Amino acid sequence: MNPMSTISYAVIGTGALGGYYGAMLRRSGKDVHFLVKSDYEHVLQNGISIESVNGNFSVNGENVYNNVSHMPKCDVVLVALKTTHNSVLSRILPHVIKDSGTVIVMQNGLGVEDEVAAIVGEHRVMGALCFICAEKIAPGTIRHMDYGHFMLGQFCRNSDGAGITAAVRRIADDFICAGVTVKPETNLGLARWKKLVWNIPFNGLSVALNASTKALMNSSVTASLAKTIMEEVVGGANACGFNLERTFVDEMLAATSAMTDYRPSMKVDFEQGRELETEYIFKNPLDAASASGYPMPSVAMLYKELLFLNERNSRM
Amino acid sequence: MNPMSTISYAVIGTGALGGYYGAMLRRSGKDVHFLVKSDYEHVLQNGISIESVNGNFSVNGENVYNNVSHMPKCDVVLVALKTTHNSVLSRILPHVIKDSGTVIVMQNGLGVEDEVAAIVGEHRVMGALCFICAEKIAPGTIRHMDYGHFMLGQFCRNSDGAGITAAVRRIADDFICAGVTVKPETNLGLARWKKLVWNIPFNGLSVALNASTKALMNSSVTASLAKTIMEEVVGGANACGFNLERTFVDEMLAATSAMTDYRPSMKVDFEQGRELETEYIFKNPLDAASASGYPMPSVAMLYKELLFLNERNSRM
Repeated sequence: MNPMSTISYAVIGTGALGGYYGAMLRRSGKDVHFLVKSDYEHVLQNGISIESVNGNFSVNGENVYNNVSHMPKCDVVLVALKTTHNSVLSRILPHVIKDSGTVIVMQNGLGVEDEVAAIVGEHRVMGALCFICAEKIAPGTIRHMDYGHFMLGQFCRNSDGAGITAAVRRIADDFICAGVTVKPETNLGLARWKKLVWNIPFNGLSVALNASTKALMNSSVTASLAKTIMEEVVGGANACGFNLERTFVDEMLAATSAMTDYRPSMKVDFEQGRELETEYIFKNPLDAASASGYPMPSVAMLYKELLFLNERNSRM
Repeated sequence: MNPMSTISYAVIGTGALGGYYGAMLRRSGKDVHFLVKSDYEHVLQNGISIESVNGNFSVNGENVYNNVSHMPKCDVVLVALKTTHNSVLSRILPHVIKDSGTVIVMQNGLGVEDEVAAIVGEHRVMGALCFICAEKIAPGTIRHMDYGHFMLGQFCRNSDGAGITAAVRRIADDFICAGVTVKPETNLGLARWKKLVWNIPFNGLSVALNASTKALMNSSVTASLAKTIMEEVVGGANACGFNLERTFVDEMLAATSAMTDYRPSMKVDFEQGRELETEYIFKNPLDAASASGYPMPSVAMLYKELLFLNERNSRM
């Protein structure tokens, strides 16, 4: 992208994540285009409302689309779909990205960047690890409860990481101007594994045992199970070439104990009858670790439990 | 016991198991004494009714006790409590067993015989592995749905087994006369591990995933999970010195697929708010395998899930 011009943004998936970050960017004056599925008519008429702990605001319904072929090509495409809908990316991305544009994967889990790289090319992919508590509570209406920062890193297939590129800095600046704290990340792969250390046990166990984070941490049995699972994920990261210390597990457990009670996103999805994001959060890490000779038996078991529960949930 | 005299029986715990086998023995003319807890008044007045697939019958309320110190000492003591009440055995057994008497552990899981041996002596302990579908449906009333045979073996601490003793044959004869098929078992320890190969996955997963055997076998995901768990249990048995082939897993899976739909006893306990029998079915096998250098990670995870669910269930 041309460093002198204003960066244009396309938001693919205007749920809690895409709606929040897209609205923040637009409020700061950026050129933002939203692809909206179920709420299209509502958002076109009423725009997007953010009910935030930091103060409520709304943005209007300009540049809202329900058909990707009507969208302009943009400099930056924010992928904020549920990963269960990622099969549409190969069709959508070529429509909305400039030849020099960048795709930012804002989803959880492992492997989306690889798939996007296969569509747009490796050097045009970044990943964002979002730390935000937000949910869509009505059409075009997002409640932002806590946090909101993200880490932004350049994708690369090397476990040493790509370092912090000028493109990452430039995009981070836009978000920072919009009021979003962004930390440039030198090693996206490592950061993804670190996030999995939390996401795998707490998303998985919260569904398998129908329990929130506080219930899981208050029981010494499930706290120890979460620890076992976390240690396996750290082992998996190490097997895949990422240097992650075991002490990170204790840090994550302590942070979880200190958090207010929280329903992980997979639990919210499960309760709302949505398909679980098991492929990127469970299957891909299991496959990657396994290919490196490190099976993660507790993670594998939790994954199978989730597949069974997901299948039954989808029939209800 | 004197081979020329009639064997007297004490039944400790007159639920589905103790009620059924005790009533079968009494119907055939044996001297049977029942220790009854919650249903004492009812059984004293009305005896025990068996609603069986093989025909209904009932026995009267003679020799029914609610206080173990009023019971005569017997030749054979059938332990048919839920294992969650086993802490009473050290107090009860000395009251009801003759100096030459035998205790038969009719419960599932590993380690009860060791505890009973510590109370009455190693050579006076047998174990029975019961294959029966029965449940107590009302005070003093047991519904017998299917099966009813058991395997009977002499306890010994050696993994080679005690062989088939004369005492085992004599007691087996009494049951066979009473219409119960009994197969003398040369190696009780091996038989217990074989039963665990089924009990651990299907008792555990039926509770953890709220599913019957058919639901678990109909999903390729949970069928494969059951297989993984079974293979771990076979590995645990091998580590503990018992010669159990991996092919046994496929036999058990095929048998389970062929079974009519079934709620394992742990699932029935869970639904009825009773404490789960995790100590003998999960903890003791895990400890034994672990002490032999073979951790069973999926079993360990399932055990922790059950402890969490049991704890929450007990608070409801």
